[in-house]
Amino acid sequence: MTDRLKIIPLGGLEQIGMNITAIEYDDDIMIIDCGISFPDDDMLGIDLVIPDITYLKENKDKVRGMVVTHGHEDHIGAIPYIEKELNIPIYATRLTMGLIEYKLTEHDILDDVKRKVVTYGQTISLGQFHVEFIRTNHSISDSAALAIYTPVGILVHTGDFKVDFTPVYGEPIDLQRFGELGKKGVLALMADSTNVERPGNTPSEKTVGKTFDHIFDDNRDHRLIIATFASNVDRVQQIINSAYKYGRKCIVEGRSMVNVIRIASELGIMQIPDNTLIEIDEGKNYPDEQLVYITTGSQGENMAALSKIAASIHNKISIVPGDVVIFSSSPIPGNEKSVYRVINELELKGARVIYHDTHVSGHACQEEIKLIYALTKPKYAIPVHGEYRHLKRHAELAQEMGIPKENVKIMRCGEVLEISDDVFDVTGRVTCGSVFVDGLGVGDVGNIVLRDRQQLSKNGLMVVAITIEKGSYQIISGPDIVSRGFVYVREAEALIEDCKDIVYETVSDCLYSGVTDWNKLKNCIREALGQFLWERTKRNPMILPIISEI
Amino acid sequence: MTDRLKIIPLGGLEQIGMNITAIEYDDDIMIIDCGISFPDDDMLGIDLVIPDITYLKENKDKVRGMVVTHGHEDHIGAIPYIEKELNIPIYATRLTMGLIEYKLTEHDILDDVKRKVVTYGQTISLGQFHVEFIRTNHSISDSAALAIYTPVGILVHTGDFKVDFTPVYGEPIDLQRFGELGKKGVLALMADSTNVERPGNTPSEKTVGKTFDHIFDDNRDHRLIIATFASNVDRVQQIINSAYKYGRKCIVEGRSMVNVIRIASELGIMQIPDNTLIEIDEGKNYPDEQLVYITTGSQGENMAALSKIAASIHNKISIVPGDVVIFSSSPIPGNEKSVYRVINELELKGARVIYHDTHVSGHACQEEIKLIYALTKPKYAIPVHGEYRHLKRHAELAQEMGIPKENVKIMRCGEVLEISDDVFDVTGRVTCGSVFVDGLGVGDVGNIVLRDRQQLSKNGLMVVAITIEKGSYQIISGPDIVSRGFVYVREAEALIEDCKDIVYETVSDCLYSGVTDWNKLKNCIREALGQFLWERTKRNPMILPIISEI
Repeated sequence: MTDRLKIIPLGGLEQIGMNITAIEYDDDIMIIDCGISFPDDDMLGIDLVIPDITYLKENKDKVRGMVVTHGHEDHIGAIPYIEKELNIPIYATRLTMGLIEYKLTEHDILDDVKRKVVTYGQTISLGQFHVEFIRTNHSISDSAALAIYTPVGILVHTGDFKVDFTPVYGEPIDLQRFGELGKKGVLALMADSTNVERPGNTPSEKTVGKTFDHIFDDNRDHRLIIATFASNVDRVQQIINSAYKYGRKCIVEGRSMVNVIRIASELGIMQIPDNTLIEIDEGKNYPDEQLVYITTGSQGENMAALSKIAASIHNKISIVPGDVVIFSSSPIPGNEKSVYRVINELELKGARVIYHDTHVSGHACQEEIKLIYALTKPKYAIPVHGEYRHLKRHAELAQEMGIPKENVKIMRCGEVLEISDDVFDVTGRVTCGSVFVDGLGVGDVGNIVLRDRQQLSKNGLMVVAITIEKGSYQIISGPDIVSRGFVYVREAEALIEDCKDIVYETVSDCLYSGVTDWNKLKNCIREALGQFLWERTKRNPMILPIISEI
Repeated sequence: MTDRLKIIPLGGLEQIGMNITAIEYDDDIMIIDCGISFPDDDMLGIDLVIPDITYLKENKDKVRGMVVTHGHEDHIGAIPYIEKELNIPIYATRLTMGLIEYKLTEHDILDDVKRKVVTYGQTISLGQFHVEFIRTNHSISDSAALAIYTPVGILVHTGDFKVDFTPVYGEPIDLQRFGELGKKGVLALMADSTNVERPGNTPSEKTVGKTFDHIFDDNRDHRLIIATFASNVDRVQQIINSAYKYGRKCIVEGRSMVNVIRIASELGIMQIPDNTLIEIDEGKNYPDEQLVYITTGSQGENMAALSKIAASIHNKISIVPGDVVIFSSSPIPGNEKSVYRVINELELKGARVIYHDTHVSGHACQEEIKLIYALTKPKYAIPVHGEYRHLKRHAELAQEMGIPKENVKIMRCGEVLEISDDVFDVTGRVTCGSVFVDGLGVGDVGNIVLRDRQQLSKNGLMVVAITIEKGSYQIISGPDIVSRGFVYVREAEALIEDCKDIVYETVSDCLYSGVTDWNKLKNCIREALGQFLWERTKRNPMILPIISEI
């Protein structure tokens, strides 16, 4: 038993994107968000990275439920995996819940999960916690900040946010409520750090709408193809608005975008004028200059619609000279090369590509973050959502806003921060980390498998098969050699023959010296052949000896 | 025989960085630059990419020599490989030649290659071509533009350049000479496109020196570590200048940087005050605040000095809280994630990292490119050096500068552009492309090997070994299964047992049906096991059946 509040991030800093935080008091645990991360370059073959929730499984009885701030993958992606383990109720606003339900349906567990749609201003109870959802703005509709009323004070978690005084859909962020909470007294603020390096304010989403109008106006004679984030409902709405204004039909291409638009339309978050959205096959009934395609692939993702179009492998859309393609996005760090590759491919095929000044961020810049500090005046600051370099700048900003250095804490994954009016200390660590999803396997690929994949990817392999007679210890077949990913075999016949000689000699010597431990023999083969290949090629293929005993 | 001038890029657009262009007239061929490219993400295990020079080998007798514009890897990196095939004389300015000679020495062919150091304003002859070297500015000293006097007119090739009115070393770009050539009449301009998307002018290199002074002044109590490009001699000079001014000793760390500084100092291009440069082991004799480390690794390269320091695997330098690390660079597209990883690691260890506004580009922005057009007033424009998106913008800029659309040509690798006063047409194609260097192998890794490496990297492999008795066609040993990079074997014992059963049944069925063609049998194994594994795991490992016959 404890009378202290604990904040425990179970992802985030070490694996960017995997946002999940546990809040604990006495026998009550609540969870904020549950995102996935995409694999780093060295996580070869991994599809997704989800959080290790050992701690929550160990405390399953205490977990009262999960509140979700918004519907982006880095906040909802791992929910189906977690629900299979914990089966806890989920609380979220409409669109967020719509996207979560779509995921649960894909995993065939929709009916197993208790869900409650929450409205802005509403408060729900999770054990001794009471959580109020507060309206914010972000690059997806229906995002929320959280005011978490705990026995020791109020925590405010901004979720991902920006301040948009003229949002496309709905109202601006509820700054009044942040102010009211501040007057009541906020114990700790956990605020978005993504854009903390940028001075000033993030422009309104509506500024992109004006840009679209200009582009539609300037390109009345051309077909338009606009790629953006599937989940950016307001962005898609603005494309549709411009299309309607300039007399074009819209074709949506890309499965995730079609889904989000369907969900958002059903919820009334998108307003699509009649006869504006048409099916892709109807496109042929309209001249190019009366069409706009809205597609996925703004990050250069290999299998997304726009990348397929650029590579001429899309089965319905081909670029023709004169097409105008707009990236309404900016590359997420790491995606630059893929994005530029797609742009180059499109331009080589004769398209004009517009990719500057056609996007605004969904995250708060410095002045907006400061505004939230000024309104909430928290005692403690816990920067969230960003790489370490962002969290550190945010910690500096919090100090500029008058919070003493010892009241600002950048948390590592698994750290337990105890917090009350007079305590603000990391007092422990719980198990946490990344679990790899590869195909159907969850957690069955780990570091050894990845190390093997890395060696194989760089150097390929050489399998050496040899059959030895029981008792007599004579080589009766082989060595046969099969290599893959190592070298053009046709050009390396002599090399392979030399390899066979090396192996034959090595094995003969071993057998002659009485080595009958096949593991020892395999090591001898690996060593002799590895050294030979390194000298001859300066390469280091994986060597797999297979010994059959007859 | 032809009386037309031909321009033939043998690299560049399709493989960025691999800059090499052949200029041909009658029986004379000259080469401009000979760079390497670094492998794309899908070129697994490849160390370098060099140009395919089949065309030059086929016309070896015509090749009179190579002129080199400057000493960056994307312009000189492939010279040793090409020299081994063609053995032609090289013409370059001092520092460029110094760096080329270092490369030739590493490949142990220095004495085999004829070399001539050229000064600005000097003209050399290569058959019917006469080539004048013109002073430019760039992010490496001694860079040159070329005026190539041909029987049909003057070609001007800018090399990589910027206009720096206040360079750190030497004089500003020789704009007068560009103007003079323009008055004489320039047939075609081949100009740098790298920064064509950026409006305005690139700031002078000297502005970075002022920034260094401010940083040194603001951080008098801290150790400084500054990472930059090894070849940016002027940048390193400015760090040394600031160090001298603020009473610090400099330690240079990173082999390539040590080499460049040695070469540049010997040539008098760098001026290092006595007792300013010290050895790394002498560092311990000075307090931290009297030291500045100058290191490689500004692109987050895994094995470079700064990355090792950040990862705590450098054997001489460890980060201590309070250290100030400066990235005097900006990430080359594709390197962002690595750079940010290193920044995060450094900050996690307590360093403060400065990585904004500490670099200027070495390439001309729009107004500088326009200036060169205004001075040379070429009849034809051939944008060079950049991705397609850059070349296309450059082509538009050339038209804004009054060159008719039909006189502007973006060239693909291997295209033969014939050019004279009244002809400007692509009239053919020659062999060209990329050759992969992997370890000691040049060209022995191709697409099949890379495809195998890709499959292995994502899914690993499963080797299936089985021994069959001659004549009786009975399975007498196996199937044995070895997997790597596929799944934790300990957790998949049941799966592996099932695999063995599948293989046993498949092989038994085949043998029973009279299949005695081992290739057919292997296909059956691959198919049955592949399908089984896909269903069970949604993964697709490479399956390698090995059949021994006894």
